[in-house]
Amino acid sequence: NHIVVTGFGTSGNEAVLELIARGTDPREIVVIDPSEKALGDAEALGCNVLCGDSTRDRTLKDVAIHRARTLIVSAGRDDTSILITLTARHLAPRLPISIVVRNEDNELPARQAGATTVINPVSFAGLLLAGSTSGRHLADYMADLAASSGQVRLNQRPVMPQEIGGPLSGITTGLGVRIYRGERPIGFWEAESRSLQTGDVIIEIVEQAPPPSTNDPI
Amino acid sequence: NHIVVTGFGTSGNEAVLELIARGTDPREIVVIDPSEKALGDAEALGCNVLCGDSTRDRTLKDVAIHRARTLIVSAGRDDTSILITLTARHLAPRLPISIVVRNEDNELPARQAGATTVINPVSFAGLLLAGSTSGRHLADYMADLAASSGQVRLNQRPVMPQEIGGPLSGITTGLGVRIYRGERPIGFWEAESRSLQTGDVIIEIVEQAPPPSTNDPI
Ligand SMILES: [Ca+2]
Ligand SMILES: [Ca+2]
Repeated sequence: NHIVVTGFGTSGNEAVLELIARGTDPREIVVIDPSEKALGDAEALGCNVLCGDSTRDRTLKDVAIHRARTLIVSAGRDDTSILITLTARHLAPRLPISIVVRNEDNELPARQAGATTVINPVSFAGLLLAGSTSGRHLADYMADLAASSGQVRLNQRPVMPQEIGGPLSGITTGLGVRIYRGERPIGFWEAESRSLQTGDVIIEIVEQAPPPSTNDPI
Repeated sequence: NHIVVTGFGTSGNEAVLELIARGTDPREIVVIDPSEKALGDAEALGCNVLCGDSTRDRTLKDVAIHRARTLIVSAGRDDTSILITLTARHLAPRLPISIVVRNEDNELPARQAGATTVINPVSFAGLLLAGSTSGRHLADYMADLAASSGQVRLNQRPVMPQEIGGPLSGITTGLGVRIYRGERPIGFWEAESRSLQTGDVIIEIVEQAPPPSTNDPI
């Protein structure tokens, strides 16, 4: 039930730092990279490391990919990242795989290769830049939603039994913004959001708990 | 009242595409870049273009920076982008400036140089990657919030006179998530959000209007 991070460049490094900031034990993280230098940085954070080529079955088997909780792929090159995704999907049919791609044309191939989440930093930056022209707080609010720092956090969770039949607007854990009913997204303004059903997945904005005091700077 | 985009690499290009997708007339966008090739792409989108070095006062004066609505800076190198920001801030003290930086260490200097919005694509990707491990819909919801495509949009607007005294939860234009009272952010759960005041700025999630039919693909 570990997290495998393959590629420890800037994005991979940032992801690991954020996972640790969210309370993930670094010993539950396995970092794979062909560079000993990068692995030294990962080890310094307390992660497990493996020097190798993640496009090989062997490497992914060595980190027990079929038992992993999730895989983060950010190999620096889209072709490499997509091949890693294909390899991992073959070995672990149900594994959640998040991949970083740099080229918009590779977003669809990444999904076809089996990625469950595709992140394009450049494209996202463009969206945030454009958004910032209609309000200077928007990019900051987006960053707060995404980061463990700040005041709020975007959260995904299953509906709770006592919420069934009630409206999304009635949940008490946060501000409900969307339901996924199967794969179908339902907005807070839609009639179907007025009655939560068994199996619904809720996306909510939650007031952020202060970080655990053990992580506080001394 | 035009938008100046300096640097037409991938992020700048994406920002312009998104601005146009949001309904900005490309003739209101001025793109500055030292590369004629890049400017050709911008011209093909209908933008005004200027070949030049945006770190020079002269170049920014040539695009009437003091009358611009906003400036987007994505020069590809952090040092160049920060120098452009400093130059523009000097020429236009109240201009909103959004800047892309690649290195986390440069976020603070970018703000000190006068940027009103600082976007770090790599850092954001790390946040989204980490977030995706706790829910596979989270990155998609974030992308929907940021993009003109999809079902929702994050919106910033001033409080309306008829809303004064009422609660943030009572607004009817969208789902209110935060108030800025001066520079202070107030969350939807805070007591102060129960009475909107003159001058408040509201951050809300709005149901996305379908794009104008003139922009529909044929
Ligand atoms: Ca946060
Ligand atoms: Ca959207």
